[in-house]
Amino acid sequence: MTEQQARQFALELMEAAPAAYLSTVDTDGSPHTRAMLNLRNRQQYPSLIGLFAPHKDDFLVYFTTNTSSSKREHIRANPAICVYYCNPAQFHGLMFGGVAEIVDDSRLKAAIWQEGWESFYPSGPDDPDHTVLRLAPRIAKGWHGEDRFGFSVHK
Amino acid sequence: MTEQQARQFALELMEAAPAAYLSTVDTDGSPHTRAMLNLRNRQQYPSLIGLFAPHKDDFLVYFTTNTSSSKREHIRANPAICVYYCNPAQFHGLMFGGVAEIVDDSRLKAAIWQEGWESFYPSGPDDPDHTVLRLAPRIAKGWHGEDRFGFSVHK
Repeated sequence: MTEQQARQFALELMEAAPAAYLSTVDTDGSPHTRAMLNLRNRQQYPSLIGLFAPHKDDFLVYFTTNTSSSKREHIRANPAICVYYCNPAQFHGLMFGGVAEIVDDSRLKAAIWQEGWESFYPSGPDDPDHTVLRLAPRIAKGWHGEDRFGFSVHK
Repeated sequence: MTEQQARQFALELMEAAPAAYLSTVDTDGSPHTRAMLNLRNRQQYPSLIGLFAPHKDDFLVYFTTNTSSSKREHIRANPAICVYYCNPAQFHGLMFGGVAEIVDDSRLKAAIWQEGWESFYPSGPDDPDHTVLRLAPRIAKGWHGEDRFGFSVHK
């Protein structure tokens, strides 16, 4: 698998996976993983396709989460995270690693906002409990069936 | 959701999930996640149902992996791991956290062995590149739709 093929595969997998598995590390050095909304999924979030269109090469990831969540606590102490996308039936797996940033940008929060999220964040996009996390991945690695691949993203 | 209901749900999810997502932490403190064979899956590994039968309450997990793999390296330096099981369509997710042990037991390696694994470990169950990892979880946490749950396992 060439790097170009791996990059194309990575883009297709992250745009189709039903969930994004986010891992953080707590202050004791223990990892924690949970499923997150995969905002890159084109079928689930067609209104966000345009937001990600300029990021075909840098694989930018956004997560929306409660400010009060444990993951936000973990990231404050150790911003190293990874996100995993998977199609288990085909042995397709993709991990991005890098450093999480907390995004405090009203325009971005409004752009990401989806109908129905009021049940999580009653005051809307600028609800103080609504946090957006950004990952500009540094590395990618994974498996495409029996082929292992890996490449650098942001250097 | 009572603890008893959460425990029953956890058992059912780990016995049906198509993969187990294992997270380790590297020496730089960064998390790494990858899909593993879910040996607890009763449909995929019917021959192992008896092996896990005495572990309905302690949620014991086994992983089989290459001795030369990066996860084995990570665990040697930091044995804290977690494993995640998920049914994204139903917002069902379950994480177990605890300390990984490397199991050096020929009988267990033979008991876990499946037809076809010769392609990963050419010399069979005792191939020097065949490592079995065990997780006796300490904590469990997750989501069942909109219900969050958590309980202790091994104290």
